[in-house]
Amino acid sequence: MMPITGATRLFAILADPIAQVRTPQGLNALMAERGTDGVMVPMHVGAAELTEVVRGLRQMRNFGGCIVTVPHKKAILGLVDEASPRAQAIGAANAVRREPDGRLVADMLDGLGFVEGLRGAGLPPAGRSVFLAGAGGAGNAIAFGLAEAGIARLTIHNRTEATARDLAARLRASFPSLPVAAGSDPSDHDLAVNATALGMKPGDPAPFDLLRLTPEMTVAEVIMAPEMTPMLSHAAATGCRIHKGAPMLAAQLGLMAAFLGMTR
Amino acid sequence: MMPITGATRLFAILADPIAQVRTPQGLNALMAERGTDGVMVPMHVGAAELTEVVRGLRQMRNFGGCIVTVPHKKAILGLVDEASPRAQAIGAANAVRREPDGRLVADMLDGLGFVEGLRGAGLPPAGRSVFLAGAGGAGNAIAFGLAEAGIARLTIHNRTEATARDLAARLRASFPSLPVAAGSDPSDHDLAVNATALGMKPGDPAPFDLLRLTPEMTVAEVIMAPEMTPMLSHAAATGCRIHKGAPMLAAQLGLMAAFLGMTR
Repeated sequence: MMPITGATRLFAILADPIAQVRTPQGLNALMAERGTDGVMVPMHVGAAELTEVVRGLRQMRNFGGCIVTVPHKKAILGLVDEASPRAQAIGAANAVRREPDGRLVADMLDGLGFVEGLRGAGLPPAGRSVFLAGAGGAGNAIAFGLAEAGIARLTIHNRTEATARDLAARLRASFPSLPVAAGSDPSDHDLAVNATALGMKPGDPAPFDLLRLTPEMTVAEVIMAPEMTPMLSHAAATGCRIHKGAPMLAAQLGLMAAFLGMTR
Repeated sequence: MMPITGATRLFAILADPIAQVRTPQGLNALMAERGTDGVMVPMHVGAAELTEVVRGLRQMRNFGGCIVTVPHKKAILGLVDEASPRAQAIGAANAVRREPDGRLVADMLDGLGFVEGLRGAGLPPAGRSVFLAGAGGAGNAIAFGLAEAGIARLTIHNRTEATARDLAARLRASFPSLPVAAGSDPSDHDLAVNATALGMKPGDPAPFDLLRLTPEMTVAEVIMAPEMTPMLSHAAATGCRIHKGAPMLAAQLGLMAAFLGMTR
């Protein structure tokens, strides 16, 4: 870590619960590597307190910005001055930069992190057909990230099908030439992605019908713990290439640092 | 420094300007020594923004409290739920603790730090007669600190005599048995204290009439830079024992840590 002085820029992560977050460790190490005079600290903020906390943070002249996570990713959009078209379309953001004039600008980096993680593993998503399980927060971010990265086709599977259709409609509005459908069959796709929480707890049902996987497919996970989910184990046994959850987080750290201006 | 995790308690120093503050370095080192899972960061907050910032900070569940300095020491009293009798009588505070239920409690540790610094140098003020130059922020805090420590008599010198008389009246209200007077002659006192800013800049006038010092007196300074002010040099040449400004800051760090609960 860099030593903290009176001249150090302040960054934060806002969450509830907060104890489990790993972003401060990651970004403080990254700033130390780069020689950036900044520090990221945890701020434990409940949903009902977010408005007042953000109002206070924007008044701090050495506040560089924050990462926001559960339960604030949707609510933060209503508290900033500007949001990227991506964040607006998704309806959520996870990063807020404070400009020198005090304006707050939000973006959603979750999906970009997933895409960067794939690219880093030699799996650029451009041109691929993708099956995505989950149309919640992670599913939304990843769907928009994949669309932006130039995938050829997307099928969205969600337990509540109306949620999948809603995401599909918003994707079509932003990417009119991308074929998007709601559906539950992963076969006949290059890449199957789990963007649900299913697989974190022992005994969770599969996020989609694993018997429809075929060996030429790549199967990607967003869950980081356990490292090998039952879905990944099954996919590996089927002969699929697998892609774990960790690269998404690693890629996000770099995207967060760039967005928050942790270069100085 | 302790590594920062999601479970780290947050402390801050609020000031404008902020770059010159040294409290984060001091308290982060102290927490590291003690194994306290906390971090102190600078927050650059202007006078007009203090209310909103404090309103935000009190909502953060892992916020342990803050040190406040120029220009916030008086204004902070109007933003907390409770202030020590000492802080109320002085009309200023420099430390705010956040209780687990969110209440903010303020105290003024400047004068205690000065007294602890004297004690640490083998100069306990109890029973001594004291001449104090300066009835501003530092002068107020030190006067109350010395009175609380049981000095025998106090003479207060201030360029604007009405300010000295005002401080004397407030001291008498809190310490009815302490003889307090406004006056400009340091002779016939055990201890002479400079609590003005005179001596920081080359060419400053003396804070009081240095020709009235006598060798049996102790002469104490609040200025930290330069380490040897012209007053201290003159006092040393006169044969007085001298007491520099640095011990006050060192003693304050311990008092701040205790007040903010940096023991866990």
